[in-house]
Amino acid sequence: MPYKAISDIGEFGLINRLSKLVEPTLAETPELLKGIGDDCAVFRLSDQTLQVATTDLLAEQVHFDLLTTPLGHLGSKCISVNVSDICAMNALPDYALVSLAVPPSFSVDMIEEIYTGMSRAASGYGLAIAGGDTSASRSGLVITVSMTGRTTPDRLCMRSGARPGDLLCVTGTLGGAAAGLKVLVREKNIMIEHLASNEPYSRSLMANLEEYTEAIRHQLLPEARLDTVRFFHEAGITPTAMIDVSDGVSSDLQHLCNCSGTGASIHENRVPINPQAREIADELQEDVIIWALSGGEDYELLFTLPKEQADRIGDRRDISVIGEVTKKEQGILLTDIYGMTVSLADLGGYDHFRR
Amino acid sequence: MPYKAISDIGEFGLINRLSKLVEPTLAETPELLKGIGDDCAVFRLSDQTLQVATTDLLAEQVHFDLLTTPLGHLGSKCISVNVSDICAMNALPDYALVSLAVPPSFSVDMIEEIYTGMSRAASGYGLAIAGGDTSASRSGLVITVSMTGRTTPDRLCMRSGARPGDLLCVTGTLGGAAAGLKVLVREKNIMIEHLASNEPYSRSLMANLEEYTEAIRHQLLPEARLDTVRFFHEAGITPTAMIDVSDGVSSDLQHLCNCSGTGASIHENRVPINPQAREIADELQEDVIIWALSGGEDYELLFTLPKEQADRIGDRRDISVIGEVTKKEQGILLTDIYGMTVSLADLGGYDHFRR
Repeated sequence: MPYKAISDIGEFGLINRLSKLVEPTLAETPELLKGIGDDCAVFRLSDQTLQVATTDLLAEQVHFDLLTTPLGHLGSKCISVNVSDICAMNALPDYALVSLAVPPSFSVDMIEEIYTGMSRAASGYGLAIAGGDTSASRSGLVITVSMTGRTTPDRLCMRSGARPGDLLCVTGTLGGAAAGLKVLVREKNIMIEHLASNEPYSRSLMANLEEYTEAIRHQLLPEARLDTVRFFHEAGITPTAMIDVSDGVSSDLQHLCNCSGTGASIHENRVPINPQAREIADELQEDVIIWALSGGEDYELLFTLPKEQADRIGDRRDISVIGEVTKKEQGILLTDIYGMTVSLADLGGYDHFRR
Repeated sequence: MPYKAISDIGEFGLINRLSKLVEPTLAETPELLKGIGDDCAVFRLSDQTLQVATTDLLAEQVHFDLLTTPLGHLGSKCISVNVSDICAMNALPDYALVSLAVPPSFSVDMIEEIYTGMSRAASGYGLAIAGGDTSASRSGLVITVSMTGRTTPDRLCMRSGARPGDLLCVTGTLGGAAAGLKVLVREKNIMIEHLASNEPYSRSLMANLEEYTEAIRHQLLPEARLDTVRFFHEAGITPTAMIDVSDGVSSDLQHLCNCSGTGASIHENRVPINPQAREIADELQEDVIIWALSGGEDYELLFTLPKEQADRIGDRRDISVIGEVTKKEQGILLTDIYGMTVSLADLGGYDHFRR
């Protein structure tokens, strides 16, 4: 059999193939309304209640670098990225299970720091940490969190419900996480250069990162938009489709459009750029719109809404209408600030296997 | 802060400390009836239905060696070890989420082999694979499966319900998985020796492992005792306490007794030794009772039953009464074939952090 590297088909090509392999198992559980292919699986608990369930794995040197990541923040982030998936279904989180593969170099205190971060984040989201598995690892640290949440059939949001004419909205700001990562990697590289050339590297040589706090916070300590989900419930808003922005709007919007069988059109000048990301991009002479659309890890919510519900958003400043859903044939397009239209697919998203 | 190695406090010492850290989160979810400390967490879905949930992580070079483990078997085992936890709660499995951290050397076909094994096992257990996360790994292969199941409040079995006087029972046979591992490791070492000394190592030099098939199957392709759980439901049996034998009877019985606040007394001559394990132990001049009680990975069920329900077991040959539950003060004792009594704690169980 010829060797086929995963990078040849990419993460999403792989997921497609694996989905087909597990398809026969879905017949076993008629209560499972949705398997692979959305932010969460959906399982019917009763006529009035649906359970949603997700899992996210964070691996050392792939998702995080311990040189730039405080352990407590890492624990918190592992919880938040899963809560973000629960939120993307318009659901509220219930409980989490935590699996840790721990390298030999880790002390008890280090693991306790991770757990303290997890516990604090969980309490903030109203979520219980119900169990887990802790094992030795002969290689790097790997943290897997799986999580369940609940919603009702009339509130459930999948990726597949967008219709041409719907408004395309996003919460918060974009690009902050990518900007924060740039700053952290720059500082790390300076430190490594000093150490590699045997120069002293004391605290006095370190950059003052205070002015980058917000961007770094977006990268290391993202918060899931449970506040938005609660607002939806209070305001009687049910998005027609929703996805969380984990890989970047350009990639996640493509998932949403593929699942809905639609196209989309977004306007660069409506994309809510994180202000600090803009400053950092200026400083590094990079293009902030690329960070905002392809940087990933912002964990905001991207959702679609029938036009007639636009007024229900009211004056919430943390929700931006960035474009609208179009017919599939029109593709997924970005109109830039000069009025030029480009295909969003050309921007690309983040793929761990193709890094 | 002094450096405290995990091996100083062991896996169970660590779990105790982490449990305390997440305790505050339990208040968030009143439906969570049991958090860390049993084979599964227990979550109330309704007055009549409980959900149980578990997660198990298998890491390369800790839980498995790819030199001796076919990938399809590995996939199947990852599912079975979780189903075993569901069974230990006297519940039936519903759905699983699968997380994979995949090393760069893995091809698409290799991952598909793992998934094919998972899918086949899941279908056998009547379980859906509902989703997951697939990521690159910069180090070894790590597979995490989390799984939910359902049971009713009157059927639920925890570790904590055993009472002095109850019969202590175990399903199937013990020691097979440990014996299989011994054979596999021996063959691997012979191969490595050949390769290290640049000698050819062709198929003709390999041992004929056919006579060890059953033991190797116990190690590589264990089956969860869902058949026993179904039998319990049909026969109207509800064990007072139950745990799956993953670390070895000596260790798992201690967990059960600690949770129940009891002691226990087991008789060596009633322990159902796997016949092939006995042959392999003879061949390797090792003590088969140590494998049977401390080897781990047999994934049988260890449970307790009120004496008056003994007749409900009937003539099932795959359930053995190996002793009885005693008062806590009497400790956890093994009476050997010579009538000598030793403390089971001296045998020890398997602890990844102390290997």
